Amino acid sequence: MNKEITSRSTDYAQWYNDLILKAQLADYSAVRGCMVIKPYGYALWENMRDVLDKMFKDTGHQNAYFPIFVPKSLFEAEEKNAEGFAKECAVVTHYRLKNDPEHPGKLMVDPEAKLEEELVVRPTSEAIIWNTYKNWIQSYRDLPLLINQWANVVRWEMRTRLFLRTAEFLWQEGHTAHATKEEALEETMKMLQVYADFAENYMALPVIKGVKSPNERFAGAEDTYCIEALMQDGKALQAGTSHFLGQNFAKAFDVKFADKANKMEYVWATSWGVSTRLIGALVMAHSDDDGLILPPKIAPLQVVIVPIYKGEDTKSKIDERAEMLMKELKTTGISVKYDNSDTARPGWKFAEYEMKGVPVRVALGLRDIENNVAEVARRDTKEKQSVSLDGLGDYISDLLDEIQQHIFDKAKSFRDANIRKADTWEEFESILDQQAGFIAAHWDGSPETEALIKEKTRATIRCIPMDAEQEAGRCILTGKPSSQRVLFARAY
Amino acid sequence: MNKEITSRSTDYAQWYNDLILKAQLADYSAVRGCMVIKPYGYALWENMRDVLDKMFKDTGHQNAYFPIFVPKSLFEAEEKNAEGFAKECAVVTHYRLKNDPEHPGKLMVDPEAKLEEELVVRPTSEAIIWNTYKNWIQSYRDLPLLINQWANVVRWEMRTRLFLRTAEFLWQEGHTAHATKEEALEETMKMLQVYADFAENYMALPVIKGVKSPNERFAGAEDTYCIEALMQDGKALQAGTSHFLGQNFAKAFDVKFADKANKMEYVWATSWGVSTRLIGALVMAHSDDDGLILPPKIAPLQVVIVPIYKGEDTKSKIDERAEMLMKELKTTGISVKYDNSDTARPGWKFAEYEMKGVPVRVALGLRDIENNVAEVARRDTKEKQSVSLDGLGDYISDLLDEIQQHIFDKAKSFRDANIRKADTWEEFESILDQQAGFIAAHWDGSPETEALIKEKTRATIRCIPMDAEQEAGRCILTGKPSSQRVLFARAY
Repeated sequence: MNKEITSRSTDYAQWYNDLILKAQLADYSAVRGCMVIKPYGYALWENMRDVLDKMFKDTGHQNAYFPIFVPKSLFEAEEKNAEGFAKECAVVTHYRLKNDPEHPGKLMVDPEAKLEEELVVRPTSEAIIWNTYKNWIQSYRDLPLLINQWANVVRWEMRTRLFLRTAEFLWQEGHTAHATKEEALEETMKMLQVYADFAENYMALPVIKGVKSPNERFAGAEDTYCIEALMQDGKALQAGTSHFLGQNFAKAFDVKFADKANKMEYVWATSWGVSTRLIGALVMAHSDDDGLILPPKIAPLQVVIVPIYKGEDTKSKIDERAEMLMKELKTTGISVKYDNSDTARPGWKFAEYEMKGVPVRVALGLRDIENNVAEVARRDTKEKQSVSLDGLGDYISDLLDEIQQHIFDKAKSFRDANIRKADTWEEFESILDQQAGFIAAHWDGSPETEALIKEKTRATIRCIPMDAEQEAGRCILTGKPSSQRVLFARAY
Repeated sequence: MNKEITSRSTDYAQWYNDLILKAQLADYSAVRGCMVIKPYGYALWENMRDVLDKMFKDTGHQNAYFPIFVPKSLFEAEEKNAEGFAKECAVVTHYRLKNDPEHPGKLMVDPEAKLEEELVVRPTSEAIIWNTYKNWIQSYRDLPLLINQWANVVRWEMRTRLFLRTAEFLWQEGHTAHATKEEALEETMKMLQVYADFAENYMALPVIKGVKSPNERFAGAEDTYCIEALMQDGKALQAGTSHFLGQNFAKAFDVKFADKANKMEYVWATSWGVSTRLIGALVMAHSDDDGLILPPKIAPLQVVIVPIYKGEDTKSKIDERAEMLMKELKTTGISVKYDNSDTARPGWKFAEYEMKGVPVRVALGLRDIENNVAEVARRDTKEKQSVSLDGLGDYISDLLDEIQQHIFDKAKSFRDANIRKADTWEEFESILDQQAGFIAAHWDGSPETEALIKEKTRATIRCIPMDAEQEAGRCILTGKPSSQRVLFARAY
């Protein structure tokens, strides 16, 4: 166990914070609720972003950029959306500072530079984008409009946590416009599947696809689909959402198109997004008391080579062999670093790269070279093996695939073992408090019951799973009839 | 001449605006002074960003992300920087909206949600970053710190123009910390050279490297270095800046490090940036009355293939041959689109892709295929040539290089022909009003003289060129002695 971080069993929340800071993913900032994403954390985000961006482009989307500010009159146009976000809006009211006459060297807001209309810092961009789409869409020929934006957004949160819940965060938001309801629904599901593929195949994070109950729906959506993941402490985390917006925004912003029969119709819409919150999910799903465990496919660094030497003459021989290995790995597209710095001992370096979750560590000493081997350690299982230097590149390439798969399998076993059925209120409460995880239970379908369950237990309906079987039963709280189990959990 | 856009000779400013809108690079938005970057413009920005990002990483920099907000007390810490930007700051004063009791369905700023300390939306990030660096730098081992950020920034401008001057814009800002003055100066020059290389080798934009006069210096810098380009209307445009910040920010934020002798010293700093403004420069430097002319190395689309056909049977034969050509081009890394849509005639398509500045157009008809040729048109010179289909991929690959070079050469010839010497005030005024361009003239070195010249003519000192020869002379306005000519121009 790494002494610098709290263990998960001691305090899971503290373990998470310690790890984010010690692995140098992020840091606190001077701005309430905002964080600094440090280079290592940002490199991870870049890798995730690049994979997602390619997936979006491969499914026909283009990137664009819309203003960060939303004039209040536009913001309030779609009432439910406005109502949902009004309480967490940062608002720009002035456009100038001036010298404070009473405090030399200090500045004050210039009262004469008050905006006629306040500007909301976007908490999400439906309003500003649909106001723009109005000018871009006239005819069915302009549809579908498939646009994505990578941007920062601000939601004023009272309780913040690094990556999981910050006042400002980075995300992507897709905003599409379609001629028919069917096409919009198809797009909603397509992007949900893109998110699920990304989570499972790149982040090694098993997810459950489902639809949100009305209480948990995105403000302004007709339906919100989501992917839900399970963290090691048994709490759920919403890892991505895809919203079917119906014609709500088209009506709020009067976006109509002439169909093939030249009849004017309102446009159908979707929006979908994932954010830097995913980094929090990644950390909490896979990592251990020694530090991060990162899936090779998105790790900023896949392999580190550490020389084991005494004295300069042995070092130069190791350097030479390590450079060869570096080249071999790089030609197969593996990212690798050779850390031959002499400011730290090998043991310190081992702990450091374990903390940072580098999937494979290669230790190379003079005797190893004489024996034509290297010691290869994998981060996920901590297993070490002496491997021949001949064909080590191929070995490591295969090992990275194996690690990727193993991280996923482990998370999936844990997740599957932590989906439990509850058929009575007692069972429900008992599982929540003793084992956590997802609870598959019957619910009578009413928002009131859902709210009451949340009030009593802090558990919410994470989703109504898409592939769940129909099964008659009775609501765990009210005993009213139900036709399908839904998934409850306490959540981040 | 394309009838949809004003010609350059009629109204250069209108030509520019028409072109940005018609080529679909950007659009106006509902937010005063902010623009929407449309997919085609954003794809161009992505290409520019990716090249620059690689150049930054190749020179040892890492990306990170800092908060968009700067608390007022931090913002004002470096006084010159604060003074320089105070007049154009968007200020967040509240963090919540609420229902307006007097106007049902409308929202109002909640007066009870007033921030204790106002937050400035970053116009530049030195303050928030140096406040963070204080915690990251303790010893010489922590230096150099070489960080870049891709971000949006806001500067409240009264007169805005698409890309050239917008309230919000996208940019990158490098912020580095060094143990010595020499290292910081070296970094400043290194990044200036990176910008010059990028401008000349990718944007095909010849630039002059120089240092700014004190009046034009970045607020808070000891020295501002810049690259200056010339637009087709004879006005200059600052295309990138690299600032040597001395110890100003280190002192303002108390950032000290223990050197090797364990003595505490203030850190030395640089910052450097380029923005979406470069897209404006690109358009104004190269394009013509028919539309954009884009350098192949950063064009979103390098080649378009347009089929010339009558009837479906000929179309399918052309489709087949075009697909082969597409494959051939793609294997050599060329981006290509085959536009066989039947909603527009070839002539309309030709005009459209000329407007969008696609460097090479290939027209392919049935008779062409029978003759084993295609008509290849280059956008820059409008030359057309019948070229054998055998080896057309290689031909086009070479042609793209030739176009890249030709666009640069043309801009450089124009630029070089528009640097004129003025030795008297009369000459100076006459050149400015009749020929524009850069004017190399003597200046007495005083800020007052520079300000007076600006007041009289709207011309400013663009830079003191770095490679200019020493030459004794007399200031064009005051007649006082000078040792070197500086470059004046009216500028964007």
